[in-house]
Amino acid sequence: MRWWARNALRCRDEPSNNFCLKQDKEGTNNDVVGLVVENVSGLRVDRSELEGVGCERVQQLGRGCCGQVACRFDVRQNRRNLQQIHRLMAFKASQFLFHGSGVPPASKCLSHQALQLNCFIQKVDSGLYSLLPLGQLVIDRINRLIEDEFSRIGALKISVPILGPKKLWDETERWDAMGKELFQLSDRGKSHFCLQPTAEEMVTSLVRNLPSLRVASLPLLLYQTTEKFRDERNPRFGLIRGRQFLMNDMYSFDVDVDSCQKTYSLVTSAYRRIFKDALQLEIRTVVSDPGVHGGAISHEYHLENNLEEDKISYCSRCEIGHKPGETDPQCSHSELQEMSSIEIAHTFQLGTRYAQAFKAFVPGTQRPLEMACYGIGVSRLLPACVDALSIDVKAIRLPNKIVPFDAAIITASKLSSDPTALSLCEELQSALQARNMTVLLHDMHKMSVGDRLYDLNRIGIPRIFVLANVTKRSFSTEVILFFLQGTIFY
Amino acid sequence: MRWWARNALRCRDEPSNNFCLKQDKEGTNNDVVGLVVENVSGLRVDRSELEGVGCERVQQLGRGCCGQVACRFDVRQNRRNLQQIHRLMAFKASQFLFHGSGVPPASKCLSHQALQLNCFIQKVDSGLYSLLPLGQLVIDRINRLIEDEFSRIGALKISVPILGPKKLWDETERWDAMGKELFQLSDRGKSHFCLQPTAEEMVTSLVRNLPSLRVASLPLLLYQTTEKFRDERNPRFGLIRGRQFLMNDMYSFDVDVDSCQKTYSLVTSAYRRIFKDALQLEIRTVVSDPGVHGGAISHEYHLENNLEEDKISYCSRCEIGHKPGETDPQCSHSELQEMSSIEIAHTFQLGTRYAQAFKAFVPGTQRPLEMACYGIGVSRLLPACVDALSIDVKAIRLPNKIVPFDAAIITASKLSSDPTALSLCEELQSALQARNMTVLLHDMHKMSVGDRLYDLNRIGIPRIFVLANVTKRSFSTEVILFFLQGTIFY
Repeated sequence: MRWWARNALRCRDEPSNNFCLKQDKEGTNNDVVGLVVENVSGLRVDRSELEGVGCERVQQLGRGCCGQVACRFDVRQNRRNLQQIHRLMAFKASQFLFHGSGVPPASKCLSHQALQLNCFIQKVDSGLYSLLPLGQLVIDRINRLIEDEFSRIGALKISVPILGPKKLWDETERWDAMGKELFQLSDRGKSHFCLQPTAEEMVTSLVRNLPSLRVASLPLLLYQTTEKFRDERNPRFGLIRGRQFLMNDMYSFDVDVDSCQKTYSLVTSAYRRIFKDALQLEIRTVVSDPGVHGGAISHEYHLENNLEEDKISYCSRCEIGHKPGETDPQCSHSELQEMSSIEIAHTFQLGTRYAQAFKAFVPGTQRPLEMACYGIGVSRLLPACVDALSIDVKAIRLPNKIVPFDAAIITASKLSSDPTALSLCEELQSALQARNMTVLLHDMHKMSVGDRLYDLNRIGIPRIFVLANVTKRSFSTEVILFFLQGTIFY
Repeated sequence: MRWWARNALRCRDEPSNNFCLKQDKEGTNNDVVGLVVENVSGLRVDRSELEGVGCERVQQLGRGCCGQVACRFDVRQNRRNLQQIHRLMAFKASQFLFHGSGVPPASKCLSHQALQLNCFIQKVDSGLYSLLPLGQLVIDRINRLIEDEFSRIGALKISVPILGPKKLWDETERWDAMGKELFQLSDRGKSHFCLQPTAEEMVTSLVRNLPSLRVASLPLLLYQTTEKFRDERNPRFGLIRGRQFLMNDMYSFDVDVDSCQKTYSLVTSAYRRIFKDALQLEIRTVVSDPGVHGGAISHEYHLENNLEEDKISYCSRCEIGHKPGETDPQCSHSELQEMSSIEIAHTFQLGTRYAQAFKAFVPGTQRPLEMACYGIGVSRLLPACVDALSIDVKAIRLPNKIVPFDAAIITASKLSSDPTALSLCEELQSALQARNMTVLLHDMHKMSVGDRLYDLNRIGIPRIFVLANVTKRSFSTEVILFFLQGTIFY
């Protein structure tokens, strides 16, 4: 069979929409070859990587207008090493993909539309969303990424309850300060609780109650990844501003101010490694007002975003920014750049306010511990990344480390019960998994290869392997280049 | 130096309490050897396992009265393969272990005392507990174990909100049926919500709203691992009966009754693999009353427990049991065994009640989907295991797959800055990690080796490696056997 990229040029202005690959019946050659299509999420085809997953005679065929690359390769047919490869975990598109209705919800927010349209999330009520399987995979990956980084700096994971007793919040007078944003309720014994939006009170109280905290345990870094709540006056844009949200919040406890500043640097460096190195996001750090948290120094971490939820001015020479209106006496450059942005993380040096209130003292003294706190809006990071990297609601793009699947395999319908193709598919899958990649099999054989490519493009799978019988000439560089010249993959 | 197990015989009636290893100054031989002490959690010393982590000349020295084993071995001093071993993740006891006050809280429940005394959990308020780092490690492992098993049967992970809109719960008339156990609150717009104790309504509604569910996607198995809430009249025994608890709840959707029963078998088999094969728990399955969930068939999964929270009668020939008072017409055996127990999981065949209420139909028909639901009390499983496997509040025992750390390394104080010992410690750590074991370094060198062994015994670390200079004769079989005859390790 032969593939044609029909209308590839015509659809340039309607990305993804008119894309169709047609099979030409005239080809009958049975060579099994593969076509790997890589999108623009930042990947480059690395020959050794392809060879490592069982591909041979890798040839780069062309590069598309948006940076995507097509390669041709054969798959080794031996299964020598298969037994060493761990058990297959089969994610199948027939069970996993739920197609959108085709009509995205009305919103000026791309991620809000795209994540619902492509079934990453589903709305339950105002500001309340369920994570569907695709969204959950991304959130789980974000959590693992953050938690791995935190365990490297010696931070310890805990969980404190969602229900926050009023008496705890009264100690710092924040019960009233939080105002209407605090969800409140009473239990059957008429005790008052809030659904905690943050946990300075509870974690400080936890540290105070540790039976034998030692100076040797300091700095003590405790974090959790738990649901937080805020009764927003105007919940909007899906996961961007919800009433329940997943947050990774860390609290550090130090012996004195100097040590606290070192810890603050340690954690904010970990933040940079997460955002810049791992996720490759262009994060802008801005000095900010600590607000109701109190304390002297605080920084926000912003991503450019056209929703105008926030506005910052940023000096690319100092690599530091401010909220518009504020200025930095240190920065005399005139290269300040204003941008609409969204906050995805916030860090605070809190001083001793909470430790004093809860009598959390440096062991052996009556001196309160020096605290800092750090929060990443995990469930906001997902839409913020989609907004930053995608240009169409039907083509979600995420940083490579947090895509729902690292790779997908499409076997052409004709080969759906061909033993050689099945065995190759399994081998390819094993080889990918042995490299710690998660793999989705797009096994809906009633769909054309083109429609399945379109599916996978919608949800942003960065490596797509197609197994098909093709005549050699249909894979000529020219055809591939023609195919890539369209705006099919971003 | 030489080790003595002082009072090992005397302390038989006071387990763990008087345990002390003393170093004898007369030994000066500098051979570095190791002593691995294995407790009764079910491990056997496997020579090839020890050799695989860099130990040479492994000799089994003796077996203690409770099944524990001591081995002698040397550690290879070359570092040839070290560079291939992944980066060290250093968990250090100086940062991780918080010693108990020595006075466990008053409770007739062993796990309630032991988990607080050894800093796995900390009480916040009645029925509300924080997970401290050790408890969190166990809970995370339980979650991974369950989720890995579920992904093998094709179940998909989701998360639905904790806040449940009243209008959803009114559809099935369960808002009122739940009574006072339902935590209720209103938002700033006076809409009513509960803190969900379970999620049949929300997940059925989610499935109904999937834009294009296909018959090919059925059976659809959706699960989540989220916090649940119940305003218990009498919260008790720590995590056993809390007001906030972590639950893994799955919901299955099938095309008809036959198919639903197959799915029910599939999931309950996964439950058995989790409880019996992976955790090696003696679970009793009992037929039960579906209660407020509705439906016809339901099973509870019980662990023996002396708290008398529940009582079952169990026929070991049929391998099925009942709540006392009920009988099974199928079972005519007279070997019924009554036992006090605790429920750790519950499964229900729900019929079409929820699907009917939410119009969740088989695709292309007006026939409601057949549902079943399945719940594991994750945060109850931790104390239930501790109760089942431990016999002393100062010696927590858990199934090997969910211990906080798979192994620990103690380097004798004298060697704390010895380059050879440090390098050996690092190599041993790498080798253990390369075998997917998590390792705790007990680096508090001011403590004696004996006190550190005691520490690690308290929190139930199954493999403890001691690096020390010892005279050869101090490791004679006799000394080791003497040492093991005490009731130091269970």
